[in-house]
Amino acid sequence: MKEFCIEKKVYYHDTDAGGIVYYANYLKYLEEGRSEYCLKQGVDLVEYMRQGIVFPVVRLEIDYKNSARYGDTIQVKSRIEKLGNASVYFVQEIRRGEALLAVAKTVWACVSMSIVSASPSLMRPQKIPDAIRQKLLTE
Amino acid sequence: MKEFCIEKKVYYHDTDAGGIVYYANYLKYLEEGRSEYCLKQGVDLVEYMRQGIVFPVVRLEIDYKNSARYGDTIQVKSRIEKLGNASVYFVQEIRRGEALLAVAKTVWACVSMSIVSASPSLMRPQKIPDAIRQKLLTE
Amino acid sequence: MKEFCIEKKVYYHDTDAGGIVYYANYLKYLEEGRSEYCLKQGVDLVEYMRQGIVFPVVRLEIDYKNSARYGDTIQVKSRIEKLGNASVYFVQEIRRGEALLAVAKTVWACVSMSIVSASPSLMRPQKIPDAIRQKLLTE
Amino acid sequence: MKEFCIEKKVYYHDTDAGGIVYYANYLKYLEEGRSEYCLKQGVDLVEYMRQGIVFPVVRLEIDYKNSARYGDTIQVKSRIEKLGNASVYFVQEIRRGEALLAVAKTVWACVSMSIVSASPSLMRPQKIPDAIRQKLLTE
Repeated sequence: MKEFCIEKKVYYHDTDAGGIVYYANYLKYLEEGRSEYCLKQGVDLVEYMRQGIVFPVVRLEIDYKNSARYGDTIQVKSRIEKLGNASVYFVQEIRRGEALLAVAKTVWACVSMSIVSASPSLMRPQKIPDAIRQKLLTE
Repeated sequence: MKEFCIEKKVYYHDTDAGGIVYYANYLKYLEEGRSEYCLKQGVDLVEYMRQGIVFPVVRLEIDYKNSARYGDTIQVKSRIEKLGNASVYFVQEIRRGEALLAVAKTVWACVSMSIVSASPSLMRPQKIPDAIRQKLLTE
Repeated sequence: MKEFCIEKKVYYHDTDAGGIVYYANYLKYLEEGRSEYCLKQGVDLVEYMRQGIVFPVVRLEIDYKNSARYGDTIQVKSRIEKLGNASVYFVQEIRRGEALLAVAKTVWACVSMSIVSASPSLMRPQKIPDAIRQKLLTE
Repeated sequence: MKEFCIEKKVYYHDTDAGGIVYYANYLKYLEEGRSEYCLKQGVDLVEYMRQGIVFPVVRLEIDYKNSARYGDTIQVKSRIEKLGNASVYFVQEIRRGEALLAVAKTVWACVSMSIVSASPSLMRPQKIPDAIRQKLLTE
């Protein structure tokens, strides 16, 4: 399936005392990459969240190959590897031009969420709605 | 009024490429200090949030005097300076033993929040409930 | 002096359980705004950091007027209010179109930093280098 | 090998607009768990960092089973699965009492770092020093 690329700049708030991006902060770039991928395919996650459908990450694998540093411009490339009944499988790469910084696989569950007056959310797995499935699969 | 002190350790995730705690991350320590202050006074913010009463910060002033570094153990001291009708005024200090690292003043509004099926929250200012007011003022 | 505006999108990682941007995370937007302001004026903070000159925030005042929510597109407007001998005074606004979300004043110190084999940084205040001063003042 | 457990409380700054802990923030708990594990074994990572020896995460796998919510008290359990020549393999669990929230495997490389006047760090893989190896293996 198609790949979609966003570009990010590394600011101080992304780095740690090692002078490089903190390992958890790559996951923020990955979130942005997946969100923008979906938006590009016509799936606005913000809109679906308002309707009570959310896609929490249920599994993540990431290999850190090289470090992103303060001031770097990096690319986040995202594509969907496959669509399950109630899961979305992403493959993502973070690069600084030629240099591969990280490779990640994430799995989303599709979940319906009820929030009742700010109490802890109740979440139920559910089949990916057809409208979303078709948009995500469009070439 | 009384002062309450919590102790925190500085981890990698708090620091930035300058080798010191990132300026926004002190605000996380301050949040924890205020929460624990309230809890000590018998006001459980988690419980009130479930009832739809929250205390967003509406104003913050902070002077950064010295830096906290990776591995430091720091103290966050919190006290209430005054209680308005619908506001709480905190004074807080962050120290590493004798060394004063930061002094902050924060103002909370008291707000009632309705969340309707994950849509953007609607917030209305409200008088601080008497039960909370009394507990916060108890010596 | 001139104002410079950047646009940001609010992602999940910026928000908290209140459904809105966490109060400390606005400070990340402010950092990005100041960095891009300087870059626009020809002052590349990344380059100066490599030379050992950094600009830590020594004071911050912020009023939170309205909340940014997940999915919002916001604007961060930055300008320099005045330049001291060894300090830079910024005024910044965060807006969502017509809606004013936050107003902040931050003060930078100019500091020279020596890092000796990853030991805690030693920092000395210093006069703002003339090359930087001139660029920041250029209309 | 031995297991070591730390306890953490979930604050607002850990959560996101879904009302639960943001998926990247579990990695901060995991960092704290590994740091405290090492400290318990007599390996002070802060001290080694000053000597230029650091342990960046080079691989992470995490399964998210249940959500931690604002106000929860959670446990982070860490143990070393095996020690390679230049790598440390951790297995970690995040629990809320009986409820298993996440299971993670992380791999550290052992790296020597030179920082020359705040320039981007140069990192070279290296054998884990014997003093560290022995301490990590002590029952």
